[in-house]
Amino acid sequence: MSQYHPVRFVDVRLEGDFWKERLDTVLARTIPSQHKKLGEYGLLDSLKLPNPPPPLRFPRHPNGFTVQVFWDSDVGKWIEAAAYALSHRRDADIEARIEAIVDDFERAQAPDGYLNCWYLGREPEKRWSNLRDNHELYNAGHMLEGAIAYFETTGRRRWLDVMERYVEHIRATFGTGPGQKRGYCGHEEIELALVKLYHLTKDKKHLDLAAYFINERGQQPPHYFDIEREAREKQGWELQRYAQSNYEYSQSHKPVRQQDKVVGHAVRAMYLYTAMADLAVELNDAGLRKACETLWDDVMVTKMYITAGLGPSPHNEGFTYDYDLPNQTAYAETCASVALIFWAQRMLHLDLDGKYADVLETALYNGALAGLSRDGEHYFYMNPLESNGTPNRWDWHTCPCCTMNVSRLVASVGGYFVSTAPDGLAFHLYGGISSTLDVGGTKVAVREVSNYPWSGAVAIAIDPEAPKAFDVKLRVPGWCRSATISVNGQAVEAKVVNGYATIHRTWAKGDSIALDLPMPAERVFAHPAVVMDAGRVALKRGPLVYCIEEADNPGGTVQRFKLPRQSELAVRQRDDLFDGVVTLTAPATAIDEAEWNTLYRTAPPSEAPATLTALPYYLWANRGQGSMLVWIPEA
Amino acid sequence: MSQYHPVRFVDVRLEGDFWKERLDTVLARTIPSQHKKLGEYGLLDSLKLPNPPPPLRFPRHPNGFTVQVFWDSDVGKWIEAAAYALSHRRDADIEARIEAIVDDFERAQAPDGYLNCWYLGREPEKRWSNLRDNHELYNAGHMLEGAIAYFETTGRRRWLDVMERYVEHIRATFGTGPGQKRGYCGHEEIELALVKLYHLTKDKKHLDLAAYFINERGQQPPHYFDIEREAREKQGWELQRYAQSNYEYSQSHKPVRQQDKVVGHAVRAMYLYTAMADLAVELNDAGLRKACETLWDDVMVTKMYITAGLGPSPHNEGFTYDYDLPNQTAYAETCASVALIFWAQRMLHLDLDGKYADVLETALYNGALAGLSRDGEHYFYMNPLESNGTPNRWDWHTCPCCTMNVSRLVASVGGYFVSTAPDGLAFHLYGGISSTLDVGGTKVAVREVSNYPWSGAVAIAIDPEAPKAFDVKLRVPGWCRSATISVNGQAVEAKVVNGYATIHRTWAKGDSIALDLPMPAERVFAHPAVVMDAGRVALKRGPLVYCIEEADNPGGTVQRFKLPRQSELAVRQRDDLFDGVVTLTAPATAIDEAEWNTLYRTAPPSEAPATLTALPYYLWANRGQGSMLVWIPEA
Repeated sequence: MSQYHPVRFVDVRLEGDFWKERLDTVLARTIPSQHKKLGEYGLLDSLKLPNPPPPLRFPRHPNGFTVQVFWDSDVGKWIEAAAYALSHRRDADIEARIEAIVDDFERAQAPDGYLNCWYLGREPEKRWSNLRDNHELYNAGHMLEGAIAYFETTGRRRWLDVMERYVEHIRATFGTGPGQKRGYCGHEEIELALVKLYHLTKDKKHLDLAAYFINERGQQPPHYFDIEREAREKQGWELQRYAQSNYEYSQSHKPVRQQDKVVGHAVRAMYLYTAMADLAVELNDAGLRKACETLWDDVMVTKMYITAGLGPSPHNEGFTYDYDLPNQTAYAETCASVALIFWAQRMLHLDLDGKYADVLETALYNGALAGLSRDGEHYFYMNPLESNGTPNRWDWHTCPCCTMNVSRLVASVGGYFVSTAPDGLAFHLYGGISSTLDVGGTKVAVREVSNYPWSGAVAIAIDPEAPKAFDVKLRVPGWCRSATISVNGQAVEAKVVNGYATIHRTWAKGDSIALDLPMPAERVFAHPAVVMDAGRVALKRGPLVYCIEEADNPGGTVQRFKLPRQSELAVRQRDDLFDGVVTLTAPATAIDEAEWNTLYRTAPPSEAPATLTALPYYLWANRGQGSMLVWIPEA
Repeated sequence: MSQYHPVRFVDVRLEGDFWKERLDTVLARTIPSQHKKLGEYGLLDSLKLPNPPPPLRFPRHPNGFTVQVFWDSDVGKWIEAAAYALSHRRDADIEARIEAIVDDFERAQAPDGYLNCWYLGREPEKRWSNLRDNHELYNAGHMLEGAIAYFETTGRRRWLDVMERYVEHIRATFGTGPGQKRGYCGHEEIELALVKLYHLTKDKKHLDLAAYFINERGQQPPHYFDIEREAREKQGWELQRYAQSNYEYSQSHKPVRQQDKVVGHAVRAMYLYTAMADLAVELNDAGLRKACETLWDDVMVTKMYITAGLGPSPHNEGFTYDYDLPNQTAYAETCASVALIFWAQRMLHLDLDGKYADVLETALYNGALAGLSRDGEHYFYMNPLESNGTPNRWDWHTCPCCTMNVSRLVASVGGYFVSTAPDGLAFHLYGGISSTLDVGGTKVAVREVSNYPWSGAVAIAIDPEAPKAFDVKLRVPGWCRSATISVNGQAVEAKVVNGYATIHRTWAKGDSIALDLPMPAERVFAHPAVVMDAGRVALKRGPLVYCIEEADNPGGTVQRFKLPRQSELAVRQRDDLFDGVVTLTAPATAIDEAEWNTLYRTAPPSEAPATLTALPYYLWANRGQGSMLVWIPEA
């Protein structure tokens, strides 16, 4: 089969209502407000070497201010998000702010290329002494991604030059050669960034460095983190006990090709697997491909929330054991769902199988998108699937990683819609884009129009500059059981293979495809081993997972409802909610909360008929605090 | 009403099967094995000043050994447990081990009376510099309780003398006088221990010191923990940020008389309230009494598990917000239920109201007793009300506080059965005891015989040395709706007031009471605001909360069951289980776990009729790992 490649995010325009609203919000509100927060909390000042002013005390932690070792990464990630946004609409003010940051990074860089503002400003003698905990290479990765995105949007390469010097320093420092450290980062990220640098420069040395980090990971004995720790102990630098009880936390418990269970910190895991899949593609590495497929199956069959949230536990911000998917205490970090999208996209280009796009889409519309508020200035770090109303969105976080992860995702989402091969186009997502793509040397203008995800009716115009024979592959989502396709008004019988319907023909200007993906409301049940969901049902329509929220169901916590199996789910277009959404309603029963004055009693609660209204999960917690539930008890 | 006083634990013999089995196990297995663990993990060595050998690395934390600042307390608590056990059966071997520990403590004590082996052995210059975190006074409290119990059982006062010298040092160090520190411990405990020392010595200075600690707590500004912290910062001793974001963690956010919400670390809270109630009794302090009553109502109406477990959250080992009672992630530390028993006992002697005894009994038979395995050598620190089979009992813990808390409880449980007043006797618990008590100068032999908690039939023999008129008060548990009483075979009409039926008469040798407490199996429902329990039901019989465990319900996780509201609960005597228990069985439905190969699917699970068997909660996790559930979904 032909090898499909992603298109560049800068080459895709978002035109559909759904994503245009999110993109406009990110452009107008999220990017500027995030810059403001970076300033208020001292992240921008922390770059002003050699004497950064002391940071603010963080208001949620009255007993301690915070300077985080990972702040460079947050600044880098903000620039990346801003750069994606600039590709849609240039903005001199934002660009000036980026340039000011680049000034600071350029000034801060050590003569040998090293560039980490925490170490340079505070403990220069300790650089590269604690890869296990202190995120130096992780920071470098995010800064590099930011520099690449900024260059791709603006053509300005000053920061990219700075980062390429830093990468040369890193290349000289790490490796298997004499005098080099055989280290790798406790928090994966630089590996996938180096692959991006390879894509930009085509210089294979960047791929080689990424492959070094991947292949060295988890080699032992001795374990590199132990070598490091012993060196720190000799220096008297090891003040705190390692908080994690094993190296599964950082997926360094064994070499990556031997890993067959998804373990540890969820975001780290996803960034690692993304880079592994990247390298499997670029190096045609069957071992890495096999490991990726095994790990994918493990997470899909035993460890993923229905929202594509990942990592149930706050203790390790990550994975625990099979089928452990608690709802109210779900960690399900926004970053983990964003990073799952990265991994799924790489898997999709390793093997064009709709199962990867299905998960990409689920994460995009649910686990990731829930992390950003409607107003574009509030966030969730954790994404529980049930709430008693206590958690609420925050406007910033001690660890602000998720804020910029969701803004960079939204600002670059166009890059996930379509891929090209020498002899074809593949549409993965629907929702309204236009682009001009290269198919085997022929420019093909495409425009995909739809009201997705509210409707499954999709129109695609295919306009090659000259008639040309090639495949158009249309993803038929796993949730869709009766897709129909027509070309220029003529029904087409296209068998769905691995989640894609392929139309091969000679395409000419004015050709149009109509794809219809019927989208009934559906009940979904979890494997009985997910004990938290036993006797419960979730509601879905198309790619959207639904929840019941107190705002739509006033009169007590939404946990009062039970939904009979036979209740019909009514699909309602609601123009009064959030600029228009589709809700689901159903006859249900509800416990009466009145007349309880003790915590426990032997008299059963009374129940009454009630109507339940469900809203797409990604929209929850945008109307004040209130209870919420994805998995509804069945009557 | 007459003031009732507890009897001394040494004056009560346990004779009933239920408690005798637990006591024999603690005597024969728990006390010796705990001493062995104290040795293996370095706690005993840590007392060998001036040069304690380095402790073992703790096997669950491969990257760091552990020497805990609270180890003195664990040794003190073991001696206390052992002393209670010795009151039932002297044991020269155990006594020799205690004497060896006393040797070490005596040798370690500083010339000025100070006695904390962590500080004396490691950082003598830092003593009393961090009351917030480092448990010095907490340790002193547990050591003092141990010394008192050991003296009460054996009459040996060498360790008590050591501890009285230490108490004098503490008295000189803390207070409102010139040059004194106005401090108090971040972890309450010494206050209730000082009240015990007062009870033993009748010296009011100990009560005054306890009252000082209680009254000083939470006074501000400035807050004592801030004064301390600033002093440490000046010395460069403050290496770590305070892990807790506020002083509610240690109930020092405001003066105790102003506290009206139960907050923070659950064990700390319970020890504090115990001492507050103690002082309310001893000082006839209406302000403390009011605070205790308000706090009691708060925890009972909004924050207690049905098992009398306390503290849902591992983050602060304590309380969160009203009705937050998650089941699978319940922290519900064994120590907190043990300490609730202490508090409830003090409240009961402040005001002889059965509501306090009801909670004492619930905690005793459920939340606390679940912490000790059937074999007497395994423990739970956390006591979840639901499990998917992952947690299992451990044979020791990094923080072994719960192990000795449950052993000292079982070994002293006789002290909770009965109280005396100048004109009466009050029976709080049933289960088989004998004692000779003093009622207004008359010796009264009592023997209470029953198969409680399996049966509610109780026979009580009252044998005064000479005929005497006095009250016999019999607690009628809150769960009992139709108690009957007879004296010498004649039915007695005794109105139940505040949970006690009072029989006033002239008692003479040979008098006997028959109390019958019918004990049907019952369904219990939680307040709808406890969203975790919505649509669920718990099963109780008498004081016992039941659970369904996989061992009795093989074929998949027990979360597969649903229990119809109308299913009859059958009570079964099962002699084949744990030397005889009563189980409950009921017709139910169960999800079929077969034929699932995906995590989520649209086809509903199939269900089939099934029989569900429930076991008393305190017995769970004694037959290997398996799922468990207290709150069962209703069909």
